[in-house]
Amino acid sequence: MQKRVGFAGLGLMGSRMAENLLKKGFPLTVWNRTEERCGPLAKAGARVAKSPRELGESSDVVVACVADPPAVERLVFAEDGLLGGVRAGFRYIESSTVDPETTRRVQAALRERGGDALEAPMTGSKNGAAQGTLLFMTGGARAVHDELLPVLMAMGTKAIWCGEMGQGSVMKLIGNTLISFMLEGMCEGLVVGGKAGLKIETMLEVIMASGFSSPYYTFKGAAIAKRDFDQHFSVDLLVKDQTLMLETAAAQRTPLPGLAAIREVCQSARGLGFGQEDIGAVVKALERMAGLS
Amino acid sequence: MQKRVGFAGLGLMGSRMAENLLKKGFPLTVWNRTEERCGPLAKAGARVAKSPRELGESSDVVVACVADPPAVERLVFAEDGLLGGVRAGFRYIESSTVDPETTRRVQAALRERGGDALEAPMTGSKNGAAQGTLLFMTGGARAVHDELLPVLMAMGTKAIWCGEMGQGSVMKLIGNTLISFMLEGMCEGLVVGGKAGLKIETMLEVIMASGFSSPYYTFKGAAIAKRDFDQHFSVDLLVKDQTLMLETAAAQRTPLPGLAAIREVCQSARGLGFGQEDIGAVVKALERMAGLS
Amino acid sequence: MQKRVGFAGLGLMGSRMAENLLKKGFPLTVWNRTEERCGPLAKAGARVAKSPRELGESSDVVVACVADPPAVERLVFAEDGLLGGVRAGFRYIESSTVDPETTRRVQAALRERGGDALEAPMTGSKNGAAQGTLLFMTGGARAVHDELLPVLMAMGTKAIWCGEMGQGSVMKLIGNTLISFMLEGMCEGLVVGGKAGLKIETMLEVIMASGFSSPYYTFKGAAIAKRDFDQHFSVDLLVKDQTLMLETAAAQRTPLPGLAAIREVCQSARGLGFGQEDIGAVVKALERMAGLS
Amino acid sequence: MQKRVGFAGLGLMGSRMAENLLKKGFPLTVWNRTEERCGPLAKAGARVAKSPRELGESSDVVVACVADPPAVERLVFAEDGLLGGVRAGFRYIESSTVDPETTRRVQAALRERGGDALEAPMTGSKNGAAQGTLLFMTGGARAVHDELLPVLMAMGTKAIWCGEMGQGSVMKLIGNTLISFMLEGMCEGLVVGGKAGLKIETMLEVIMASGFSSPYYTFKGAAIAKRDFDQHFSVDLLVKDQTLMLETAAAQRTPLPGLAAIREVCQSARGLGFGQEDIGAVVKALERMAGLS
Repeated sequence: MQKRVGFAGLGLMGSRMAENLLKKGFPLTVWNRTEERCGPLAKAGARVAKSPRELGESSDVVVACVADPPAVERLVFAEDGLLGGVRAGFRYIESSTVDPETTRRVQAALRERGGDALEAPMTGSKNGAAQGTLLFMTGGARAVHDELLPVLMAMGTKAIWCGEMGQGSVMKLIGNTLISFMLEGMCEGLVVGGKAGLKIETMLEVIMASGFSSPYYTFKGAAIAKRDFDQHFSVDLLVKDQTLMLETAAAQRTPLPGLAAIREVCQSARGLGFGQEDIGAVVKALERMAGLS
Repeated sequence: MQKRVGFAGLGLMGSRMAENLLKKGFPLTVWNRTEERCGPLAKAGARVAKSPRELGESSDVVVACVADPPAVERLVFAEDGLLGGVRAGFRYIESSTVDPETTRRVQAALRERGGDALEAPMTGSKNGAAQGTLLFMTGGARAVHDELLPVLMAMGTKAIWCGEMGQGSVMKLIGNTLISFMLEGMCEGLVVGGKAGLKIETMLEVIMASGFSSPYYTFKGAAIAKRDFDQHFSVDLLVKDQTLMLETAAAQRTPLPGLAAIREVCQSARGLGFGQEDIGAVVKALERMAGLS
Repeated sequence: MQKRVGFAGLGLMGSRMAENLLKKGFPLTVWNRTEERCGPLAKAGARVAKSPRELGESSDVVVACVADPPAVERLVFAEDGLLGGVRAGFRYIESSTVDPETTRRVQAALRERGGDALEAPMTGSKNGAAQGTLLFMTGGARAVHDELLPVLMAMGTKAIWCGEMGQGSVMKLIGNTLISFMLEGMCEGLVVGGKAGLKIETMLEVIMASGFSSPYYTFKGAAIAKRDFDQHFSVDLLVKDQTLMLETAAAQRTPLPGLAAIREVCQSARGLGFGQEDIGAVVKALERMAGLS
Repeated sequence: MQKRVGFAGLGLMGSRMAENLLKKGFPLTVWNRTEERCGPLAKAGARVAKSPRELGESSDVVVACVADPPAVERLVFAEDGLLGGVRAGFRYIESSTVDPETTRRVQAALRERGGDALEAPMTGSKNGAAQGTLLFMTGGARAVHDELLPVLMAMGTKAIWCGEMGQGSVMKLIGNTLISFMLEGMCEGLVVGGKAGLKIETMLEVIMASGFSSPYYTFKGAAIAKRDFDQHFSVDLLVKDQTLMLETAAAQRTPLPGLAAIREVCQSARGLGFGQEDIGAVVKALERMAGLS
């Protein structure tokens, strides 16, 4: 029999992931902080829970995809939080991008009540969420990873087990670190090239033909070329993840000179009012600094 | 009839490129600042010129692949320099990575004597040079690009015309900027991940399965995983190119906050004695800063 | 009649400040997380409280000088925390360096119980604390500043009212930002000068004779010249304050590119094991990066 | 008998320094790239030389105060350059801020002809130049320093001998490095403080009362408070000096992470069109990045 799945957090990613769970035949209950976002899924057949607690009570597994550590805090530990609905055998999948300390605290609380948790942050953007081609990087007991694989495979095409609880989150933060560098590097290059009179199409053609090509440059480069800053992944959220990475590194006493510099450029993009645009908008902050606009 | 080709600068890249010219049947003359490096090519059938001037006199086209702007200066403008051998119809291919101002000066000098120049810096590492799969990004008159395509295609598989003289060099500097960011981003990630207990193989597996994957991570990541810092592209040369990019940007009044931070990490790698190792050695500088070694 | 004063947090600064309160004739009660540090003051005539709550109950004004926001959290809001001892007319002086949000939360809680708070972070190092020459930068109601001036003047020579609650903390963070820049600038200069063969005494002589001289360079430069890294202000604490400043700026969407770069150098000093040394030890991190040791 | 003094480079600093030489009774000849700037000094009694060569021929000592290394190149080594007028006993004082390599090349050329050089870059801003209160940091033979002291003391109040040729220039670059850090630190602080509602007068009052106070903050802070960006020391020139410092450090393989970050902020000030304003205008670049203007 199919596991009853709950889904908390119906944002850009979550709503699309939940839809795929429904399509693959999982009995689905959803909860969102602002209830109106539950509408489309309810129409498509999902139950709507009144609280995270109720969400937990009516599900075997709950997938969470919320904004940040404080949102996980509220979801799990608040008075009518998920924890109140946890019992033996319950499973929690943390797909939010948070710090390793947060996921370890959640796991400990669930285990005390006989449940368990798996970190499963993902990568793939909203298109990947819609098409069910996400990549999950998991942390937690290997057995729990194996047990929950069918749920993850309803939303993605691959799940790589990274190790114990916390290591999935660190892996995700590393991934967004790489994206931060690729984005900033491309934007710095495009601004200098543009000032030198190079056409953006030529620059992207060279990049794509090179040994350092990446589907990421193809995708993000095309959007920047069209000046399309429609949100796939917002500057605000990228800065949140950069900050979590810097905090994770700080706790290890590891300096991250490159990421620290990049974060301040993204911060400038926020200061200039682009926080809710796609991260491609970082190019606009660099253009401002260079006096181009 | 085949053009007589000259080749100046038989380093890691140049020696392999010259070999391919010979294999493809071009009558070849070579010159190198230290003559002993000409030996293998001479054995394989190349003539050895005594000076850049003689190299120019005995060739229809000369390809240059030397270290930096001062080396181009010496090659072209010195007393027994190439310029002395230039006459109507002579062609010069600048494959060194230098700044746009240098290539524009060389072009002007050649045109005064009835010749012309094409910038054609390349990307592809020493393996690509050996296999003849380099990517050239050219700058100069489009007609000169078309005319010299057969020579370039003896050494590579693609040549993208970027625009007028100077723009090929800028494109190359942009390429090495992207490499700088990808390298630094990967290294910062690997150090944090390593301290958090993640296995390097797992981290690379995730990166390769993601939407920001790149052949570059596959290649450089594997080398770092094996702690193989055998030189493909040295830290010293990367820093040279980062400096040229920063100078190009400075002349435009364009700030490059990310690249500036990364250059100082690479500078630290040089300070620690890794300047002649492969750029993967940047990870060792970050490990030192983090107190890991 | 003299106000009964309580003092929480007997570290490097706090113990010296408390001593001055005692010398100036204030009836004093002290509390410290680890009780043994209360010994010397008890001998000198101070009462020792068993808990922050008791400290509050037996004092009219409590001065707090603890490590960071979580320590303030514990001190004030824990079960046997200070808040339990607060009643109408009670005053709390926050001399810890924390973020403005923390001090505003504390003020609100105190006001609910009829008390009030004043931020009064200070500058002056442990020598200034011992000699009673600290400079306080206060935030809160102007009337509360005026009312508590006699207490502050027992520990320092000047108190500048910066505005409402939170602004004293921001001012303090700005002060430590300036120190961060002056320290890093001097250390970067000394390393380059040292490698160039300049004597450190000559460099300091020039700095002190210049228009950008500062007592700070005299004091910190002399310590570095003697390689004396005995703790006045630890690298760990400076990084804590830099992080609070970056968070304060992030909440405002203000980029701080210089401070972000400097923080990572200090982070490296921590990674290298100098976290508990004086901030002058940052020079050692830079020397490592430069391959000097 | 008074030495005949020549002065090359009548900019913001040079014109004021030359005036003081005249006032102190030195027979003075002047030269400037654009002759019209010689007018006021000619009226006051100075001879005007037609070329640097003539300047050299008619002087015992020539003081140079030009913009950058290429300007020194032109002044000394051009066809009608100073070198042509050099003979035994001739002295050259390099007061321009340049890199140590440049001053060493000049010294070598002068010594070949029986003359000698002294580096004497200075600090003190245009006010100090006008009032004759400059501080010189010299490099070269100690005997030459002693011999030329009367000339320097006509323009300043102190000259500190830093060591051999090159070390005076390095010391000057270190000085401007400290200024860069103090400026950027103050500006980052003022922007955050301003957004937090602190008054700039309060912030400056605290800084001036603190142990990290400096006449520099008093002077530059007051100008920023009045939004007076009238040029004392232009952003363009500061960036030139930061670049020379970074090159000096690069030649040593010394990373300067803080200065590199600061230079890019100053670069942004140039990109935004503030290059010819006073360096206080860096605050405007930071305000832009923060979305304040």
